[in-house]
Amino acid sequence: MALLEQTLRQIRPLDFTLAKLAHARLDQLTKPRGSLGRLEELAVRCVLITGQERPRVDGKVLFVFCADHGVSAMGVSAYPQEVTAQMVYNFLRGGAAITVLARQLNITVHVVDLGVNADFDSQFPGLIQGKIGRGTANLAEGPAMSRQAALRAVETGISLADEAIRNGAQLLGLGEMGIGNSTAAAALLSAFSDIAPEELTGSGTGITEATRRKKAEIVRRALISNRPDPADPLGVLAKLGGYEIAGIVGACLAGVARRVPVVIDGFIATAGAWVACALHPGVKDCLLFAHISAEQGHSRVLTALQVQPLLDLGMRLGEGTGAALGMGLVESAVRLFNEMATFAEARVTDGMSGRNEDTEKRGKRE
Amino acid sequence: MALLEQTLRQIRPLDFTLAKLAHARLDQLTKPRGSLGRLEELAVRCVLITGQERPRVDGKVLFVFCADHGVSAMGVSAYPQEVTAQMVYNFLRGGAAITVLARQLNITVHVVDLGVNADFDSQFPGLIQGKIGRGTANLAEGPAMSRQAALRAVETGISLADEAIRNGAQLLGLGEMGIGNSTAAAALLSAFSDIAPEELTGSGTGITEATRRKKAEIVRRALISNRPDPADPLGVLAKLGGYEIAGIVGACLAGVARRVPVVIDGFIATAGAWVACALHPGVKDCLLFAHISAEQGHSRVLTALQVQPLLDLGMRLGEGTGAALGMGLVESAVRLFNEMATFAEARVTDGMSGRNEDTEKRGKRE
Repeated sequence: MALLEQTLRQIRPLDFTLAKLAHARLDQLTKPRGSLGRLEELAVRCVLITGQERPRVDGKVLFVFCADHGVSAMGVSAYPQEVTAQMVYNFLRGGAAITVLARQLNITVHVVDLGVNADFDSQFPGLIQGKIGRGTANLAEGPAMSRQAALRAVETGISLADEAIRNGAQLLGLGEMGIGNSTAAAALLSAFSDIAPEELTGSGTGITEATRRKKAEIVRRALISNRPDPADPLGVLAKLGGYEIAGIVGACLAGVARRVPVVIDGFIATAGAWVACALHPGVKDCLLFAHISAEQGHSRVLTALQVQPLLDLGMRLGEGTGAALGMGLVESAVRLFNEMATFAEARVTDGMSGRNEDTEKRGKRE
Repeated sequence: MALLEQTLRQIRPLDFTLAKLAHARLDQLTKPRGSLGRLEELAVRCVLITGQERPRVDGKVLFVFCADHGVSAMGVSAYPQEVTAQMVYNFLRGGAAITVLARQLNITVHVVDLGVNADFDSQFPGLIQGKIGRGTANLAEGPAMSRQAALRAVETGISLADEAIRNGAQLLGLGEMGIGNSTAAAALLSAFSDIAPEELTGSGTGITEATRRKKAEIVRRALISNRPDPADPLGVLAKLGGYEIAGIVGACLAGVARRVPVVIDGFIATAGAWVACALHPGVKDCLLFAHISAEQGHSRVLTALQVQPLLDLGMRLGEGTGAALGMGLVESAVRLFNEMATFAEARVTDGMSGRNEDTEKRGKRE
């Protein structure tokens, strides 16, 4: 368990004294105080997460972890299992939504096979090979993965994120592809949050209401047959998760340990994020939740996690599409923080500077 | 009144049959149907607005119209009037929030002096000179502008937007700078929407609650002394508006007439947009509202206009900062629409294609 343990041990609490410095800078920039709203919060968060007074997020890397799910044989998705592999090719050829957004937003996409039920030919050198199994077992009938396999997938996620960070990544985004994985995510999130399966089971890729009810029943069965124990997050992940969700767990932990902000995509990525948060109390403050997915239950889960997403655009595609847009906003926040002129630099009269409370604040700052 | 009349006459109703084609394409792209949420809506809107089956929004131009307001002498802002001119220099030097965002998002910013109370030296060739007056008169005591001056400002906005479009702009963003202009915007929006001044008067650049109440009283006085008639939108604009708001009106109309999507910034830009909508019923469908500003009343105004903004980030800075982020989302939407592979192109199994309603739809399409 070396790499996981080691990574968890490297997670340090944030130094909140840096927030004061960051706010002081924000209040000197040529804008009414607080007028950039959540972008100001995001900038402060990036200062805290990175531990740097002037953080940089120019190197943007998004992982799309891909894997198959045994439960897909039960008809929980509108798409057959082979679509996972087909979409891997689509990512590599640049025709998928996430690859279009990544081109626009200058994000490097790493497509990782952690458990797709297909052999990929070698003519697509863009694919990162990390296959641990050819899809999980059916979680409705027993554990989706062995504990060992789940650990290997988590550690692969750690290693890949570590490598990306060594190569210059300053902002990570996490997304996924895996037919059937909203079923696994619903089961994981229900186990951790105690929200009923019925409320966390959505229409995924666009199933009918009858199929959705069947899917909720499968999630319920999975919880009964596996009896997950939230006090053992790795055990819960093995029983109910998937290889790609485990990869997200690992990449979250690596980002946090290396002090790189991590942007979480939608419903399924949030399931991975929750496992990571359960593994270490210091994780949550370093994760940025990109958006509220239209997938039923995501909004409730974010509320239960006590996090505030950035966007609400009715998206429910996965792949990291929400995360990519969120990464753009994080970049905006950090660029504004770094590149805006101060009142003094721009010789703009600061309407607030005459006020007593501000004079006092300045006194403290200097 | 040649240019304004001519522009209004060029506005054509949208051809909604194109929406069907756009939806048909969206449903062939490699994603579950509808899973890009509001980005799909945005793509369809761009098809309708441009009248093109495959719209392009690569040429992105944002106008920051700048002007001063006589009412600022009454202490309605936390900043003195000279800040308008100081910020113009800050825009041109690239130190303002909008210029930082524009660099990131690859947006060309046009800074336009329509009525700043300052003479700009010529060492900043980036500034577009369109000065019509040195600030408006105090709207609390009578008309802010003559009808003729308001018309000139509107037509300057039309001409500048026309020129930008001739030079390749495919997506316009509209923002503003003008100390005191949230007072003018509140008065305009109250006149058109019938929402009480108290509810539309916010803290602007960050005034105290006592000042905000005084500001609401000034807005009320402006409505009483000017007796605006919503049936005469140009008259209302002249009485209560500002040169920069009039510029926004003109740029809106030019965008709509030339079939270029126009992204509206926050509270003040919305006041200009409302005037444009009042001038022609065909305008509203061609405007895209970027965000809900934290400025009190903006949310209510958007509801009254029956438009749905894209972002809600607690921003209240103006300058076009919200519009810039919105333009990024519009670009995402259009790129996804144009660049994503179809199920057929990517050889991905379409889970929905077997369904009867879809087969039927396809039949019609081909």
